[in-house]
Amino acid sequence: MEEKKTKENSIGVVETKYFTFAQPPNELLLDGGHKLGPITLAYETYGELNQDKTNAILICHALSGDAHAAGYHQGDKEPGWWDSMIGPGKAFDTTKYFVVCSNCLGGCKGSTGPSSINPINSKPYALDFPILTIGDMVDAQRHLIDHLGIKKLLSVVGGSMGGMQVLQWVASYPDRVKCAIPIATAAKHSPQQIAFDEVGRQAVMADPDWHKGDYYGHSQPEKGLAVARMIGHITYMSDQSMEEKFSRRLKEKNYSFKFTSDFEVEGYLRYRGDNFVKRFDANSYLYITKAMDYFDLSGDKLIPIGKKIETRFLVIAFQSDWLYPLYQSQDIVRQLKIRHADATYCEIKSTYGHDAFLLEIAEETHLIKHFLDKTFLGYNVKRI
Amino acid sequence: MEEKKTKENSIGVVETKYFTFAQPPNELLLDGGHKLGPITLAYETYGELNQDKTNAILICHALSGDAHAAGYHQGDKEPGWWDSMIGPGKAFDTTKYFVVCSNCLGGCKGSTGPSSINPINSKPYALDFPILTIGDMVDAQRHLIDHLGIKKLLSVVGGSMGGMQVLQWVASYPDRVKCAIPIATAAKHSPQQIAFDEVGRQAVMADPDWHKGDYYGHSQPEKGLAVARMIGHITYMSDQSMEEKFSRRLKEKNYSFKFTSDFEVEGYLRYRGDNFVKRFDANSYLYITKAMDYFDLSGDKLIPIGKKIETRFLVIAFQSDWLYPLYQSQDIVRQLKIRHADATYCEIKSTYGHDAFLLEIAEETHLIKHFLDKTFLGYNVKRI
Repeated sequence: MEEKKTKENSIGVVETKYFTFAQPPNELLLDGGHKLGPITLAYETYGELNQDKTNAILICHALSGDAHAAGYHQGDKEPGWWDSMIGPGKAFDTTKYFVVCSNCLGGCKGSTGPSSINPINSKPYALDFPILTIGDMVDAQRHLIDHLGIKKLLSVVGGSMGGMQVLQWVASYPDRVKCAIPIATAAKHSPQQIAFDEVGRQAVMADPDWHKGDYYGHSQPEKGLAVARMIGHITYMSDQSMEEKFSRRLKEKNYSFKFTSDFEVEGYLRYRGDNFVKRFDANSYLYITKAMDYFDLSGDKLIPIGKKIETRFLVIAFQSDWLYPLYQSQDIVRQLKIRHADATYCEIKSTYGHDAFLLEIAEETHLIKHFLDKTFLGYNVKRI
Repeated sequence: MEEKKTKENSIGVVETKYFTFAQPPNELLLDGGHKLGPITLAYETYGELNQDKTNAILICHALSGDAHAAGYHQGDKEPGWWDSMIGPGKAFDTTKYFVVCSNCLGGCKGSTGPSSINPINSKPYALDFPILTIGDMVDAQRHLIDHLGIKKLLSVVGGSMGGMQVLQWVASYPDRVKCAIPIATAAKHSPQQIAFDEVGRQAVMADPDWHKGDYYGHSQPEKGLAVARMIGHITYMSDQSMEEKFSRRLKEKNYSFKFTSDFEVEGYLRYRGDNFVKRFDANSYLYITKAMDYFDLSGDKLIPIGKKIETRFLVIAFQSDWLYPLYQSQDIVRQLKIRHADATYCEIKSTYGHDAFLLEIAEETHLIKHFLDKTFLGYNVKRI
């Protein structure tokens, strides 16, 4: 069940930091063949890095997340997006571990993305931003981890697109990840997942305010982006959680017999859609969803044949998640087992759908806390 | 499995007919309290009405269907939308039965709807068209059935929204329906179904070409309507049927690293979306989806407590249909059984999702043919 967010066990006031690298002529070479630089990543850290630098955990966010995973920004009433999981005594216990979270490359919350200034013409990149992959996002994160002086991460963790980054970290840098926790994710998008993303992109691009991506300084394609987000929200919930939350309750006593939001569920979706456009860049939405669709570490691509990896895995999935169904997590575990990797699969009973990874705090805490502690202990024993 | 459509067992060339009624001052009183008239219904008939007028079957179409259910319009290469089910020797055997199909009230294929001319100002109704319900659609159909001289229908049949009309016929006119075949439908929309409809409506209304419904004589909101249809198509298929049809196949050999349709599934959705706008009116889309969302014959509303009905039911559902999940058909059957109605529930194994009602022809034919023949035989035996 959803846990109450209280300030008592909070990490307290935090600040976002910025790291800039890939200064020309040392740009980052992207999977698509383009070079990009300079690159800034917005990031936050919680807890203290130990002397051996063996207690660092990287948290990777989902599509609409950001670097602000925990604690409070000065003056804010709402904490970071995974505050219930990160803090003293929580799943990611900041009295023991050093937690890092960065806004992904291509994002719009302080990291370089399509809304950033292109140094070539001092205008926002817009569609001149090169198309990226999850691999590019992870390569950028790796620069940040280098910068922080961390040779090997104790853990890389994330749900949904964050889970894709977890898998990508292991595929790209297996020797730098002690344990990996991909949650409610997939080794590749199914055509249904691609289809939902594509309809969201089409909704954005159908909005005349999109202007082929060149809307900066004007109004952004708010209506199209709101529709895209509404589609998203349906897929994040389950049939059952919608029934429990809204059923067929009306906002007024009777049908309006107009095209206003009669049903509570309609009002909720419109609210979530309208709210999203205030805090998210439409082009970032296009680039990030495309990166998710291109992502494919299925089969031998996760761990190449003949390669042995020592990374331990905890793969978590949720029973009512129909956007990232159980079989996709099971496929990841199957591939890991075939390569003789140390992998545990945990299926959490939940009615929350895909949103469960943000809501099933008690269950996740129970599983993750134990797994991390055991990995950390093994780490230090081996080092002695 | 999908059956090949061949001209051999086709009803042949057919024509759409038109019936106009509710001439002022005898307008139809709608559920929303408004009066509407005159009303025209486009309809087609196949086979011959017998002398006793006991062999008439009414087919009700789904959201985007029309009166042209079977046979070929002069010069057309494609037959009507349920041609594989209607014709000599088929599920609805036109050598035995007289089959009627009408475009629903509110539609845009010849029946009165928002794109029709409002007699008050000689302009298209647009949003001056009163909001309708499934009950209103059925009341209009009832006028057509009266006009055809049919006192009691042998059967009312339909899938999806067509199935809602089947249930409504029994609720409104139980003595006029010998047997009812609701397929892949629900006694009420869940909040998830309302949510999908609402996002589709929002996509239409977000398009500036919609002009608050007043787009006739100008271009219609093509982009918004195409997005709405794309969302629909995802919900009509299943995860598995999309995997079988498209998997992750690309249209070109490699990723384009642009926002074109890389994946086949993207191209398919765009094609279906673009195609739909050529043949459907955006305002009809709004009105019809709203009617589906308002529809509620759950619980006692289908058959009031204490009422006994003699209509026989064959309720058909498909295993991979996640838009109208099995439990919704099972709920209908439960309510019928509680009221001691004669109801049979048939669950068809299929990977086609909601589209199965248009594709699982062999299974449907097997079930329906037998059920109809038995009902018809019982009918005539009783009459002798």
